[in-house]
Amino acid sequence: MPAKLKTAVAGATGYSGLELTRLLLRHPRLDKPALLSRENGNQAKNLADLFPAFSGNGGHPLQPLSWESLKRQGVELVFLATPHETSRALVPQAAAHGFRVIDLSGAWRLKQAEHRVVYDFHDTDSVTAAELTEKAVYGLPELNAERIANAALVANPGCYATSVILAVAPLLKAGIVDRQRGIISDSKSGVSGAGKEPNARTHFVSVADNLSAYSVFGHRHVGEIVEQLELNPGELTFTPHLLPIPRGILSTVYVYLNRRMIAAEVESCFRQFYAGKPWVRVFANPQLPQIRFSLQTNYCDLGFCLADDGQRLVLVSCVDNLLKGAAGQAVQNMNLMYGWKEEEGLQ
Amino acid sequence: MPAKLKTAVAGATGYSGLELTRLLLRHPRLDKPALLSRENGNQAKNLADLFPAFSGNGGHPLQPLSWESLKRQGVELVFLATPHETSRALVPQAAAHGFRVIDLSGAWRLKQAEHRVVYDFHDTDSVTAAELTEKAVYGLPELNAERIANAALVANPGCYATSVILAVAPLLKAGIVDRQRGIISDSKSGVSGAGKEPNARTHFVSVADNLSAYSVFGHRHVGEIVEQLELNPGELTFTPHLLPIPRGILSTVYVYLNRRMIAAEVESCFRQFYAGKPWVRVFANPQLPQIRFSLQTNYCDLGFCLADDGQRLVLVSCVDNLLKGAAGQAVQNMNLMYGWKEEEGLQ
Amino acid sequence: MPAKLKTAVAGATGYSGLELTRLLLRHPRLDKPALLSRENGNQAKNLADLFPAFSGNGGHPLQPLSWESLKRQGVELVFLATPHETSRALVPQAAAHGFRVIDLSGAWRLKQAEHRVVYDFHDTDSVTAAELTEKAVYGLPELNAERIANAALVANPGCYATSVILAVAPLLKAGIVDRQRGIISDSKSGVSGAGKEPNARTHFVSVADNLSAYSVFGHRHVGEIVEQLELNPGELTFTPHLLPIPRGILSTVYVYLNRRMIAAEVESCFRQFYAGKPWVRVFANPQLPQIRFSLQTNYCDLGFCLADDGQRLVLVSCVDNLLKGAAGQAVQNMNLMYGWKEEEGLQ
Amino acid sequence: MPAKLKTAVAGATGYSGLELTRLLLRHPRLDKPALLSRENGNQAKNLADLFPAFSGNGGHPLQPLSWESLKRQGVELVFLATPHETSRALVPQAAAHGFRVIDLSGAWRLKQAEHRVVYDFHDTDSVTAAELTEKAVYGLPELNAERIANAALVANPGCYATSVILAVAPLLKAGIVDRQRGIISDSKSGVSGAGKEPNARTHFVSVADNLSAYSVFGHRHVGEIVEQLELNPGELTFTPHLLPIPRGILSTVYVYLNRRMIAAEVESCFRQFYAGKPWVRVFANPQLPQIRFSLQTNYCDLGFCLADDGQRLVLVSCVDNLLKGAAGQAVQNMNLMYGWKEEEGLQ
Repeated sequence: MPAKLKTAVAGATGYSGLELTRLLLRHPRLDKPALLSRENGNQAKNLADLFPAFSGNGGHPLQPLSWESLKRQGVELVFLATPHETSRALVPQAAAHGFRVIDLSGAWRLKQAEHRVVYDFHDTDSVTAAELTEKAVYGLPELNAERIANAALVANPGCYATSVILAVAPLLKAGIVDRQRGIISDSKSGVSGAGKEPNARTHFVSVADNLSAYSVFGHRHVGEIVEQLELNPGELTFTPHLLPIPRGILSTVYVYLNRRMIAAEVESCFRQFYAGKPWVRVFANPQLPQIRFSLQTNYCDLGFCLADDGQRLVLVSCVDNLLKGAAGQAVQNMNLMYGWKEEEGLQ
Repeated sequence: MPAKLKTAVAGATGYSGLELTRLLLRHPRLDKPALLSRENGNQAKNLADLFPAFSGNGGHPLQPLSWESLKRQGVELVFLATPHETSRALVPQAAAHGFRVIDLSGAWRLKQAEHRVVYDFHDTDSVTAAELTEKAVYGLPELNAERIANAALVANPGCYATSVILAVAPLLKAGIVDRQRGIISDSKSGVSGAGKEPNARTHFVSVADNLSAYSVFGHRHVGEIVEQLELNPGELTFTPHLLPIPRGILSTVYVYLNRRMIAAEVESCFRQFYAGKPWVRVFANPQLPQIRFSLQTNYCDLGFCLADDGQRLVLVSCVDNLLKGAAGQAVQNMNLMYGWKEEEGLQ
Repeated sequence: MPAKLKTAVAGATGYSGLELTRLLLRHPRLDKPALLSRENGNQAKNLADLFPAFSGNGGHPLQPLSWESLKRQGVELVFLATPHETSRALVPQAAAHGFRVIDLSGAWRLKQAEHRVVYDFHDTDSVTAAELTEKAVYGLPELNAERIANAALVANPGCYATSVILAVAPLLKAGIVDRQRGIISDSKSGVSGAGKEPNARTHFVSVADNLSAYSVFGHRHVGEIVEQLELNPGELTFTPHLLPIPRGILSTVYVYLNRRMIAAEVESCFRQFYAGKPWVRVFANPQLPQIRFSLQTNYCDLGFCLADDGQRLVLVSCVDNLLKGAAGQAVQNMNLMYGWKEEEGLQ
Repeated sequence: MPAKLKTAVAGATGYSGLELTRLLLRHPRLDKPALLSRENGNQAKNLADLFPAFSGNGGHPLQPLSWESLKRQGVELVFLATPHETSRALVPQAAAHGFRVIDLSGAWRLKQAEHRVVYDFHDTDSVTAAELTEKAVYGLPELNAERIANAALVANPGCYATSVILAVAPLLKAGIVDRQRGIISDSKSGVSGAGKEPNARTHFVSVADNLSAYSVFGHRHVGEIVEQLELNPGELTFTPHLLPIPRGILSTVYVYLNRRMIAAEVESCFRQFYAGKPWVRVFANPQLPQIRFSLQTNYCDLGFCLADDGQRLVLVSCVDNLLKGAAGQAVQNMNLMYGWKEEEGLQ
């Protein structure tokens, strides 16, 4: 049996980081991960201090971040489940120390400067930042498996972006989309997608019994989607909504086909594109996925309905925002980077 | 002080009927309404038998439906909060007895036979049914106030239809919609919109922590919207979703403008259209309504965002499906039919 | 028609304050209330800035607190929906200026110093504070109607305390409780009871799909209950729980009777106690109230089950924590203070 | 590697049965289970027909129940996730054919006829039924591990009963409970505990934003608790409540100690009792479990608070009703019956 891989997680106490820690702890190819506390100050010393349910067997100690110490512990791969500003600062350090990195934030996903402005980065070493931006691989395994396998830096996709790109990519590749009429994604997310920081928007009383649209024409995930799908400006309209549920995303995507088709052709287009991809489930038309079907799994579920006119297409795409939309996809990327099966540790 | 109007409610124990009963009981222009039980059999004799909270002061007796008895009691106006098959059967009887009727079902909303097929009516007297269909007025006060005032039969609009029509009508009337690119309404409703009948879809465990699309390209409210907005086939794509909340509707409507505009022009278009309409609130751009803002009120709340290109428009429209989407709108229609202020009994 | 009463509300933007403002705006005996902003700084100038749904007709301007200005505006009665520290500081000022006050916080509810320690007050003028503490009337209308009518300072009860006291008081007064075996209240509240401040506890993801007990043997409402019911130390065990709902309280109260009784006797005990009290509904045994029945109303709903042994009694008591548990009860107290019917403005 | 055990599941499409099927499919010691459809009629032929998410790799075929066929397939152990009437009828048949059985219903849990009356059984062969009743082992591993190991028929405990018994058993065994003052369990359950049958009680609109007590002094689990804890009549008061969440149970249990103790003694009592029991987590005083901590796990989480008087004890006990309260506990029982570690297949 080969030696087990040693990993580290920065940001283990956020929603994505905690989910990732759970997955890494039970992954058969891994040693127990090193869990890094955000700061050296008067922070929790053990994950169990924050989450009593993690208290068995001494719990899970948190250590301050020290690249030298991680080297000594034999860590090869570092997961960053940190805010994008933090990831933007940490990745150059990690790269300089020779670590491979999977970053779950938006810090390294965008190639085009015009998209990156929404993050307002202040790089201390802009040359290195530009090099790393260039080298970073967008970690959507169903599109970029080969490049992920060889990457030193994987930029794990956004949760919304995952749901939208996987719904539309097969149609665009098949060249059957009438792009002039526009692509619309009406997306809805559970509250964990908004992060752990308490604020007026995430207060229970603000969310319960409610639905609200937000960041219309201004959400940060638009750039990722546009870049990965190679769309022109204005071809995509993306509207996120906040659902009164803890987790899960459903995107209803509206596409016009550039010729009349029958449902079987469309289904076939999806089945061919995702043949051999274990983490996308294409539903038999006209069955549609629901958020609950993919909760607690790493699946992206896809289904669709086609109008009688054979051209108006409504796609439904569901992911668990903390798994296929974050931590699960990160593990899937790790599996590719180390030559393991994509399912490993995710079932 | 003038004599108070005497009304009756059939279907008072359903969600809409109960809400309507609440409103009628406190309406200053009305006598206590006659509440009709669905059948003569071993049914509840009093609303309090079904709803303990209605038990004060002897509760509210339910009586079997008898047109003669209603005449003797001095009833002038009958509300039908019954299933559409029942409404389709009862309205000809009520008309024959000279009652004015406000029907909350879909039985009399549609003028065009091609839209009516989704209801599969079996009229016993097709001549009368055709006449009543012709005479029935679609009870959306913001569009049809005058005709409602004189109507003998008002077909109260569907909840989804209300939210969509009120969002789009001002733009169509202004002639600024690029109809060739299509109008899309991605609508989301709370569960009371699905009715009181328990089934697998309305079971708490099916709905909670979930979101699902349903009846894609096949929902019954499409016909109403198309007729009222005078759209061509295929111009509207309407996708309803079931939200894990008890009540409330939010429709996100996507429209392309046929020329570049600025937000102030769009806002002005809405403000002009709804000037003097007490039950539509136009939000100052770029503020957007949320479901909670209109819950427990008769308002339809409207807001929008316009893309930088000045042509892609995202509208958000919210109503409480049991009030502006059903019982409240029925009261608003009654107010018009009897020459009272539209706000009467609804504040 | 008599002149309308002029009131003011401090803390109108909190959950209770907003609910109170809604009630006062539609109360037939009142002028439009003066709404006081918490600080003079860069705060909202209008309620509509915070709540777009309040934006009609110019919205509702907020004014900085100035006792002189309130005098000039003809204000007689001031509602404080402020944190208890603030209320503790403001009431002596209001009293010095001759205003009558209804305080919704815990600042003036407790007579016994041993109970008051949980609030840790720092009175600047301890003599005045002691006098006001003495004069303050605990504003539970079903127990203290006469004293409320003449009070200059009414301490509006806590939401939990209202539900527990109203359930137990009739039994204690009838002398049928075996107090030696203890009284237990297992109480459950919606999240608005925890206030509007966002924190880890009120984050949607912490509350949804969850239930948790908190402040066991340490909740601040215990003192109120013990004082009003005149219990001995240790006779009451009170456990609050946080429910995944926005509002509503249900208390399940366990009492042992000191003799065998039948249900009719117990029901009669409640009916006698609450005869003529419009805001308590006693359910016919064995019907039990549910939280939904009293939501959006000012009712306290009471029901019970009695074991076959005739001694073990389970009481269920429900209130809407923002109405009978706060703002509605405050209006009920005002009605008593000005000689109006208790129902006025609350239906 | 030893041959894998072959099992069958009757009732795989109910909530507990589906959860059980999920667990069995991934249990390392088991072959793929045989899934039995309830009737031979026009039922689903494949689990994927009912649950699209189970559609991969041909899905999971359902077969009609035939004891001979199960024998031919090599099945040794049969799980019954069927209604209690069905389980009461099937177990004698299964026993006659030599199968070991784990029954998840209430059919075989009760030894005392006076408790059994709540189920109103109509046994066709009352002698066999009496023998099986005698032989059946109550499948609570923390209490009855040895007898479970050798049982032919295991009666898997009720979900509420699991949460209550595990909270109280250590205290009773230690002899420190003042039983004369009574034991009270105020228990709250998610809706999946009420079963999959749609009805007025489980309709989303009835449950959401609500809490209700039900079956006060009349719930079927009382008998189990009383028998397992060997209580006298009237010593236990048990009140179940329906929570607006899909799954999870929290029981708040009130016990008076017969002598003054300190918290460390009480904690020690629990830690000793559950030493070596992998599926009970005792929280360090005064930390309390919450429903979310045990969701999606097989843990029973226990915590407590002790009043200053050293005698009033409030216990909090949480389980996932579909796992430790049903399917997970069934797997735990199977592990004991076949000599495997209790954790096998449950992590």
